[in-house]
Amino acid sequence: MAELTHFDDRGASRMVDVSAKASSLRTATASGLVRMAAETLALIVDRKLAKGDVLEVARLAGIMAAKRTGELIPLCHPLGLDGVEIDLTPRPPDALEIVATARLNGRTGVEMEAMTAVSIAALTIYDMCKAVDRGMVVERVRLEEKTGGKRGVYRRTDAGDGGEHPPAKP
Amino acid sequence: MAELTHFDDRGASRMVDVSAKASSLRTATASGLVRMAAETLALIVDRKLAKGDVLEVARLAGIMAAKRTGELIPLCHPLGLDGVEIDLTPRPPDALEIVATARLNGRTGVEMEAMTAVSIAALTIYDMCKAVDRGMVVERVRLEEKTGGKRGVYRRTDAGDGGEHPPAKP
Amino acid sequence: MAELTHFDDRGASRMVDVSAKASSLRTATASGLVRMAAETLALIVDRKLAKGDVLEVARLAGIMAAKRTGELIPLCHPLGLDGVEIDLTPRPPDALEIVATARLNGRTGVEMEAMTAVSIAALTIYDMCKAVDRGMVVERVRLEEKTGGKRGVYRRTDAGDGGEHPPAKP
Amino acid sequence: MAELTHFDDRGASRMVDVSAKASSLRTATASGLVRMAAETLALIVDRKLAKGDVLEVARLAGIMAAKRTGELIPLCHPLGLDGVEIDLTPRPPDALEIVATARLNGRTGVEMEAMTAVSIAALTIYDMCKAVDRGMVVERVRLEEKTGGKRGVYRRTDAGDGGEHPPAKP
Amino acid sequence: MAELTHFDDRGASRMVDVSAKASSLRTATASGLVRMAAETLALIVDRKLAKGDVLEVARLAGIMAAKRTGELIPLCHPLGLDGVEIDLTPRPPDALEIVATARLNGRTGVEMEAMTAVSIAALTIYDMCKAVDRGMVVERVRLEEKTGGKRGVYRRTDAGDGGEHPPAKP
Amino acid sequence: MAELTHFDDRGASRMVDVSAKASSLRTATASGLVRMAAETLALIVDRKLAKGDVLEVARLAGIMAAKRTGELIPLCHPLGLDGVEIDLTPRPPDALEIVATARLNGRTGVEMEAMTAVSIAALTIYDMCKAVDRGMVVERVRLEEKTGGKRGVYRRTDAGDGGEHPPAKP
Repeated sequence: MAELTHFDDRGASRMVDVSAKASSLRTATASGLVRMAAETLALIVDRKLAKGDVLEVARLAGIMAAKRTGELIPLCHPLGLDGVEIDLTPRPPDALEIVATARLNGRTGVEMEAMTAVSIAALTIYDMCKAVDRGMVVERVRLEEKTGGKRGVYRRTDAGDGGEHPPAKP
Repeated sequence: MAELTHFDDRGASRMVDVSAKASSLRTATASGLVRMAAETLALIVDRKLAKGDVLEVARLAGIMAAKRTGELIPLCHPLGLDGVEIDLTPRPPDALEIVATARLNGRTGVEMEAMTAVSIAALTIYDMCKAVDRGMVVERVRLEEKTGGKRGVYRRTDAGDGGEHPPAKP
Repeated sequence: MAELTHFDDRGASRMVDVSAKASSLRTATASGLVRMAAETLALIVDRKLAKGDVLEVARLAGIMAAKRTGELIPLCHPLGLDGVEIDLTPRPPDALEIVATARLNGRTGVEMEAMTAVSIAALTIYDMCKAVDRGMVVERVRLEEKTGGKRGVYRRTDAGDGGEHPPAKP
Repeated sequence: MAELTHFDDRGASRMVDVSAKASSLRTATASGLVRMAAETLALIVDRKLAKGDVLEVARLAGIMAAKRTGELIPLCHPLGLDGVEIDLTPRPPDALEIVATARLNGRTGVEMEAMTAVSIAALTIYDMCKAVDRGMVVERVRLEEKTGGKRGVYRRTDAGDGGEHPPAKP
Repeated sequence: MAELTHFDDRGASRMVDVSAKASSLRTATASGLVRMAAETLALIVDRKLAKGDVLEVARLAGIMAAKRTGELIPLCHPLGLDGVEIDLTPRPPDALEIVATARLNGRTGVEMEAMTAVSIAALTIYDMCKAVDRGMVVERVRLEEKTGGKRGVYRRTDAGDGGEHPPAKP
Repeated sequence: MAELTHFDDRGASRMVDVSAKASSLRTATASGLVRMAAETLALIVDRKLAKGDVLEVARLAGIMAAKRTGELIPLCHPLGLDGVEIDLTPRPPDALEIVATARLNGRTGVEMEAMTAVSIAALTIYDMCKAVDRGMVVERVRLEEKTGGKRGVYRRTDAGDGGEHPPAKP
């Protein structure tokens, strides 16, 4: 198994030197779920049709957090971003699915930006609904796909990675 | 079921007015899991004993993110924090458990600070180990307990909330 | 006319010492306008009814910026905030009005928080609509009212302050 | 009239994908006014000649805010900046004019950076002088010119855009 | 010798719990030097008299950085600040002295805020003058005095601490 | 002696326009010392061998601060970073040496990023050990080397710059 590249050979943490890498188009897609009471999901869906929009607040929070990934994740490179999109889809009866895609022309990948977008969007949903449902759970935040860079495409498969990393038994 | 307090009666988002609330001691504890390949967990545990320490980097990332919760979660109050602690415990064969506790004397609770600490610590573990295991999954981020404020103590129970919000089926 | 308190007697800038002031409830309300083509206003209003919501994005941007006022305004005290609300009201045929109110129990006023909320909400509207109307103008950002602190209530009057500070002739 | 590009075809907000755009030199110039009592303007001008310098504080605040535009404006791309300049010019008897120019080699324009620089510089003037003149008003913040990108040069004209967007009637 | 309180008894870092401490007035004063070529110091002093003011830029940078100490120093509590002042004094022939004082009513001290203000002011001087003098050195950044809290007053003495910590021999 | 480029010819501060400069690989190395009681150094070294690791916390703080240099230093360009490394070496009996190297493909140098990394790492050591040794002093923060850009390599020499800028006499 490969080394943990965020440490040098004496074990000191570092931001890995990518200055010699070529700049190329990178994309990454991550996803996650917010599990909640069915009544909470109904409340979110109904208010969206009516007046308040939890999903739009969460989407903006995720986009804004993606831009600040380099401030939050200690050894992440500070990156610009050429685009971020977040989809939030109700998964009745009791979950919201969040999918985020980040894009950049750069020397290193944007997986962390996509993962951060999903996580902060999920926490925002928790924040906005916690007064009615403190038991909500953020589930299954994971990388779905990445493209670009020397290693090329990564795509999560149900059998493959999923088999190796079964869902948590909490 | 109660209203979503982050919206006013016309559906506009707002930061809820807590100026009339009494200041009191608030605590919140949240937890989460990072599911990974058994080899990845071994690598983390071994390097800790040897030289590099993924857990310490993640712990610091979580503490620092907790301090910036109000910047990340749109309708969260900006809060000071009187203390933050994060424990990371290997759960062999294939998971790390993260538990974060936040404390504050203030007018509103610190659940989001604890949830943010867990989430960013989990993402940091992902970042540091992704070169060897892109299939890692952040699982089951949830509030365990809160104290303080008018509503008093909340404590998650296995039967209660757990029953209503079963683990994700990804 | 009083001294500029942000300078000491040698002309050096400083963050004024408020440590001896009593903590009390402070509120401030500020307002501003975004002047635009009538077609742009129609587009905003229509999309709100349909699908996209410029006003909600601007409202969140204003709330989030209010929390970071102390980072943006050099000699402003870093403050918590106990509540922020922003109203955006179409003023046909060609303007949007923004009104923001900030609240805090603290040693110094929250005027700058309310002014910052209005300004960043206005810039966000500009950003979201600039592809269709680069000629939009942010107008008349001003303090409407403040309460709390030793000096008590300030309330802008049409005859009074308005007379002294007529609208810009651009 | 064109679509609002910050929303996708379902009305969800997004950071527009610019990854396929060519990088080119972009500039943008914005301007604004701070209207104030004549005595306040005199105080600013006099102190500049003597000891304290409101204009320099405002200039720095504007430059620093321009660098953080992507954090403040939700759907703005996070950008580097190759240069920022801010001019503050007294317009006797009762106004200060602020003009900011931003420059970048990049995939998207820097209008928001210039507009943000002007707005935060204006708010800083308000902050520093509010103890003597709470009635100050930020007026007429607008884009004057932009260059670069596929659409080429935009230059505001008195007859054209000005005619369509008359000054506010507060 | 006492324990390092930023670690718990297993060696894990933490933000120490201060929730049970009483809030009281805290002050801290720190100082530092920027050593430079005599010509550089002359240039700073002369331009101040004439047109540009390195010292004012450094002072503002120090004040603004003090407000963000909790973001920069990992285990520091996020604090408000009730006041910050920075003095910059030429020490001919070849040094500038920086002295910063921070004040807060709070549960923990503001030493780090004063030390951060001095350090970032010093770095700003370096930045502004590095084109003419890359050999400048930041020297002797230290705590001069602190008051408040349970331990009471600390005041650095020449004989005492100075004797134990002689100047660097680089 | 050259002009201070951060001011225009009227003395107004600015972020220098680098848009016409070529992008090239830049590196910068800075260093500094934290002088402390011999017992404090022993405590740091011993705990590292045992459980808590002051050096790792300081290293991460320095890396994270380097990424935010453009937010802290007013006229610094906001830059990405392609890599950052920090070494902390005990210099018995009474000092820790910090050396930081930053790398970037860009239009302007990364000296300030390296200097900021050293300074914040040093302050973090102070913060973590101040409970046992308030008399610690940050010494001799300076640029050691830079490469890239039109001016080419700068390398500090003991005789040259060192002779001109002797250690502080506090």
